[in-house]
Amino acid sequence: MSTALFEKTTHSLPTKKARKIRVALFGFGVVGSGVWEVLQSNRQEFLRQFGVEFDVAGICVRDMQKQRLVNVPAELLSDKIEPLLEDDSIDIVLELIGGRYEAATLIEQALRGRKHVITANKLVLAYELPRLAAVAERSGVELLYSASVCGSVPVIAALDELRTRDTITKITGIVNGSTNFILTMMSEKSVSFERAVDEARTRGFLEADASLDLSGADAAQKLSVLAYHAFGQHIKPHEIETHGIENITSDDIRAARDEGETIKLLATAYLDGDRVKAVVSPQRVPLASIFAHTRDEFNALEIEARHAGPQLLYGKGAGSLPTASAVISDLVSLVRGE
Amino acid sequence: MSTALFEKTTHSLPTKKARKIRVALFGFGVVGSGVWEVLQSNRQEFLRQFGVEFDVAGICVRDMQKQRLVNVPAELLSDKIEPLLEDDSIDIVLELIGGRYEAATLIEQALRGRKHVITANKLVLAYELPRLAAVAERSGVELLYSASVCGSVPVIAALDELRTRDTITKITGIVNGSTNFILTMMSEKSVSFERAVDEARTRGFLEADASLDLSGADAAQKLSVLAYHAFGQHIKPHEIETHGIENITSDDIRAARDEGETIKLLATAYLDGDRVKAVVSPQRVPLASIFAHTRDEFNALEIEARHAGPQLLYGKGAGSLPTASAVISDLVSLVRGE
Repeated sequence: MSTALFEKTTHSLPTKKARKIRVALFGFGVVGSGVWEVLQSNRQEFLRQFGVEFDVAGICVRDMQKQRLVNVPAELLSDKIEPLLEDDSIDIVLELIGGRYEAATLIEQALRGRKHVITANKLVLAYELPRLAAVAERSGVELLYSASVCGSVPVIAALDELRTRDTITKITGIVNGSTNFILTMMSEKSVSFERAVDEARTRGFLEADASLDLSGADAAQKLSVLAYHAFGQHIKPHEIETHGIENITSDDIRAARDEGETIKLLATAYLDGDRVKAVVSPQRVPLASIFAHTRDEFNALEIEARHAGPQLLYGKGAGSLPTASAVISDLVSLVRGE
Repeated sequence: MSTALFEKTTHSLPTKKARKIRVALFGFGVVGSGVWEVLQSNRQEFLRQFGVEFDVAGICVRDMQKQRLVNVPAELLSDKIEPLLEDDSIDIVLELIGGRYEAATLIEQALRGRKHVITANKLVLAYELPRLAAVAERSGVELLYSASVCGSVPVIAALDELRTRDTITKITGIVNGSTNFILTMMSEKSVSFERAVDEARTRGFLEADASLDLSGADAAQKLSVLAYHAFGQHIKPHEIETHGIENITSDDIRAARDEGETIKLLATAYLDGDRVKAVVSPQRVPLASIFAHTRDEFNALEIEARHAGPQLLYGKGAGSLPTASAVISDLVSLVRGE
């Protein structure tokens, strides 16, 4: 039996015509394919709950010959950016191509063309979030990026919400799933750093350039985005003191364990007077702490605030389905907010 | 340096006149006093961020002679319900009197009078949420209750958000802080059930009627509210299979520990076909699990969904400041939504 709270949209549906929302996908790897699948399999649900139909207007890919992970009508695929980007009938652009400069240009042009943009691109955001947010504001559209940090765990929404009613004083997180997987293997299976890295690669947990993960650079990019939402200050990744896990040995982890601790790669930002300090670094944490029990590719973010006390969010940080799910979350929030 | 995303409201302020929002408080114990203090100390912040002034129109108390926890102008206090409830200038009613029938009547009358209502009253909600939500909908106002479950941890918002994009299949939580405090003491300090209950009482963690906590009834009320948001089905507390912790002994906990486990009072609801099953019961959990590391008066809720993978939210479940903070969160969401 469903009840009034949830029947609200159903009730009003028969009188409303379904609104068509035109979406363009740029990039069609694992995340893009996942988004495509959710859009297809939830058509009825979007119609029922929100009275909308998401209509994929086109999919821009780099290589037309590449084997696709899912079946899509051939006429939707194109390797040309401009026709889609200049199509005024498109409401929302999903930027899923990755990389920095090309993606930044794509996002900016889409925003200037008064299209909402959803991206999972933490690298671009870490360097250009304030500028792109300003472009979005001037154009009267939204720039959303739930998927850029901590996968399906709604950390940005949690920070935004808490910030409206409280002062956030510190955030601490495990925000890189692959290094956490490596440290977990070293700690629990007593394997060497090298073997753990190999295993992470086999499972597809590492970025194409593994040093981005191992050096802490990926964590610093995410911390930049998180700190922006926690404190309203933009800190670029190169301004964050960053240490990776390349020099952590099995001996270090064993020594920590002998003292009731383990080692985790923590990303931390905190208020120091009016300024925000941010550090990414391997740290010892007590075995009895929640961070010690954040295993494998899971992420966790602890938020400390003046009144609310410490809060923690925990969940899968990566993977195509969790990331696609976060992109869909942004789509839904656009549709509800309009 | 603050940036465009956050300057938005500041920029538009000079052209807007501050909107006055008239609020009536019913009940003025620890939570009500906390709300009063936050409203006073954040006047500038509400004005700057949302362009509103919260104006407390009156405070209804049972006993006018009682010593107050904070200073309030005497003319605001009254022991009469009707004048405040019938005052058409009041926009929002905060129901913080507790109990069942009187509070339910108050909430219903306020909603019928087209006032938004914010409540922390899980008992009323567990029995009457669908009916009261329907009254709110017909009157075109909102009924909000973030503070009713898990204090400042935004579990209801998380369930609502996830439900728009995914199918929630199971929720499992530690949702009663006092029993969790008692089990933590028994487990970590090896004290008896009786001594742990005494300590919880001394610290103010138990309800006036301690059996509400110890029997699992409080957890069942909260589970009812959570299940409604997770699955859209209303299950009344007496329909939930409920076992308390009264018969847990130190020996039980020791025996669990010998097998690498501990005992927690878990509230669980899951989809079984189309129906929802709900149980509150002490359960063994592995010492290495996050639930085992949810200590003292902390709460945790794990949410399992088809696409997003498991998520967990964790934070302080009780206390006057966290609860007041959740009430403020509802106030802010009303102001933003209008």
